[in-house]
Amino acid sequence: MADMTPEEIAQACGRIMYAEDTSSQHMGIELLEVRPGYARLTLTVRRELTNGHGICHGGYIFLLADTAFAYSCNSRNERAVAAGASIEFLAPAHEGDVLTAEGVEQHRSGRSGIYDMRVTDQTGKLIAVFRGKSATIRGHFLDEHKGEK
Amino acid sequence: MADMTPEEIAQACGRIMYAEDTSSQHMGIELLEVRPGYARLTLTVRRELTNGHGICHGGYIFLLADTAFAYSCNSRNERAVAAGASIEFLAPAHEGDVLTAEGVEQHRSGRSGIYDMRVTDQTGKLIAVFRGKSATIRGHFLDEHKGEK
Amino acid sequence: MADMTPEEIAQACGRIMYAEDTSSQHMGIELLEVRPGYARLTLTVRRELTNGHGICHGGYIFLLADTAFAYSCNSRNERAVAAGASIEFLAPAHEGDVLTAEGVEQHRSGRSGIYDMRVTDQTGKLIAVFRGKSATIRGHFLDEHKGEK
Amino acid sequence: MADMTPEEIAQACGRIMYAEDTSSQHMGIELLEVRPGYARLTLTVRRELTNGHGICHGGYIFLLADTAFAYSCNSRNERAVAAGASIEFLAPAHEGDVLTAEGVEQHRSGRSGIYDMRVTDQTGKLIAVFRGKSATIRGHFLDEHKGEK
Repeated sequence: MADMTPEEIAQACGRIMYAEDTSSQHMGIELLEVRPGYARLTLTVRRELTNGHGICHGGYIFLLADTAFAYSCNSRNERAVAAGASIEFLAPAHEGDVLTAEGVEQHRSGRSGIYDMRVTDQTGKLIAVFRGKSATIRGHFLDEHKGEK
Repeated sequence: MADMTPEEIAQACGRIMYAEDTSSQHMGIELLEVRPGYARLTLTVRRELTNGHGICHGGYIFLLADTAFAYSCNSRNERAVAAGASIEFLAPAHEGDVLTAEGVEQHRSGRSGIYDMRVTDQTGKLIAVFRGKSATIRGHFLDEHKGEK
Repeated sequence: MADMTPEEIAQACGRIMYAEDTSSQHMGIELLEVRPGYARLTLTVRRELTNGHGICHGGYIFLLADTAFAYSCNSRNERAVAAGASIEFLAPAHEGDVLTAEGVEQHRSGRSGIYDMRVTDQTGKLIAVFRGKSATIRGHFLDEHKGEK
Repeated sequence: MADMTPEEIAQACGRIMYAEDTSSQHMGIELLEVRPGYARLTLTVRRELTNGHGICHGGYIFLLADTAFAYSCNSRNERAVAAGASIEFLAPAHEGDVLTAEGVEQHRSGRSGIYDMRVTDQTGKLIAVFRGKSATIRGHFLDEHKGEK
């Protein structure tokens, strides 16, 4: 790992997390990009994610944003978990929409961080804003000496 | 509907919502109880809701709480949607845990409401607290004159 | 301190905090009651807390709730600070209104806690709901052996 | 007003609000800049804003951020109020620190908006992040035909 760049470390962390992450795979969430403090993921609104009227449940919009947050705050080879989050729902998403969540690290200090995610649809319309608070726990994705464990 | 009690209306709204709610059915969320301003739901943490280490993804804990919130704020025959929500994750949930979300209406005035949900496991341990803000939209579950539509 | 009840400890912690708390004194916030995990405080909406139209600034409603939260989470002889908070403004408060903030401890575990405050006016009308997250820091109000330091 | 640019309208709205805003004047909050959807304000941490140990009360950090939010969401000649807000406290501020709050409009649609404020000290250190939700009410700052009322 000693000779990897932060970008390579972030990509390797994302790859390892996603391989373990049967839940995101099961949901159909795809990982598009991971950089230090940043991740971009996508999810298509299938019928089973909607209520009976073709509107995506807010809980799945949260799930997508929360997953993007998880990949963002785990991109530096330190494992972190969500301590809390808030979401504002700004516009409905419909069956067939392709949602993208991406975000920025607002703050990282000691064991905690703040990450802001935006969820947009395929037209760029803002569907939701999300703010997550992370807490670092023990553990790494990459072995400090030998690379991917 | 004119001769139904608020409790009967709440139960009927819950029944109608759940029949439409293919998403909750698909997720395995069960509706245990609906009263005016209140709902209690349960979800068992299956393997596909966990990360690779047997810990339930926070997004699914949110989803359960958000669903309980939806049934709570739709229990008076006025359709309402989530405008926003926040969650604090207090303890991890593990594969096999049976989670229950229930909550109270803190406020309802004009078109908006505030609902607090608590998510506990089968031992009564508090896993998360959730606060949702609702906004009433047009539409009813029950016909004002004839009962269930 | 060894022979004090939790209620006596909470009252002593409140008394010591308030004596140090020139800010609350300056604002006119009065401490009515402190119990373990609970505090009740009051503030009258003076002209200088309003905008030009007699409506209390939301910032001062937050300040009252946040102060009640601080006394609640510092009532067990362990110093704690606010890590974050959210507030929902439900009804305006006017010049001359007597606001009361009180709340309950929802959770306390390890170094962190969740506290819910309600702000009401003199008629009992709900003005705002507030949720605070606390983090314990080093330090005590009472000497473990000899009582008030 | 018809021949004013959005920047001139924002500046005029800020000037009119501040003249009415005896509370901010009383607190020592200074208005540095207003643009459409944006405001920058400053506050020096005086002794009476601190607890007994020279640390600024979180409630005053909120108050500064909330005031910056108010000027941001009132910068387009439509009166708006806060519906709710959340804050994360990231580092303490001390007596003598000069705090600045500024922020961006994340979203504006229909009657509601989302605004993110950052509070920094004189060294640029991030002290808090704040997210406010606004709701437009009736009323304007400037007469549509004749300019400042």
